[in-house]
Amino acid sequence: MARPHSFDLQNGVKLAIWARKDMAHEAKVPLGPRSATECTLDHNVASKAEVDAVMAEVLKAGAIITDPAQDTFWGGYTGSFQDLDGHVWEVVWNPEMDIME
Amino acid sequence: MARPHSFDLQNGVKLAIWARKDMAHEAKVPLGPRSATECTLDHNVASKAEVDAVMAEVLKAGAIITDPAQDTFWGGYTGSFQDLDGHVWEVVWNPEMDIME
Repeated sequence: MARPHSFDLQNGVKLAIWARKDMAHEAKVPLGPRSATECTLDHNVASKAEVDAVMAEVLKAGAIITDPAQDTFWGGYTGSFQDLDGHVWEVVWNPEMDIME
Repeated sequence: MARPHSFDLQNGVKLAIWARKDMAHEAKVPLGPRSATECTLDHNVASKAEVDAVMAEVLKAGAIITDPAQDTFWGGYTGSFQDLDGHVWEVVWNPEMDIME
């Protein structure tokens, strides 16, 4: 698996949720098919217990767990799910990352 | 067009670029089709001139301009393009947004 390229983003970053047809209209591109592997959202948390808590919460909310929380080869602890619109999220505890609360 | 929901994100946000097949492997989901309208990246800049400069730079780099830079009905100035992988970006000057340089 290729190593991902990672870019630090500046302060003030926002996540905006648009309807797909509105995105197509805004950028003047044809509406594309639904696809789970165009982008994913990673949510980094401060502990393994917090990963488990988030996974339990999204399961209750109707998410589909695609990969239950488990230890990773690199020393972290992650789980993945698809939300009600099919978007993939990964919940991550990375022992090398300081999470600002 | 529905108004998008916007969420302020905490400091420390990163953009990571993965191969689509690696995303599928990581989250244990099937590799989906290519689609331009699953997510877009907005790049906010500090002036109309900066929008023009970015659009000129990406055109030179081989991007496809899907919507040339122009004034918007809400008082801003935006242009959209697809990068070499087909991902949609919007370059935005929003007179109501302070850009931290």
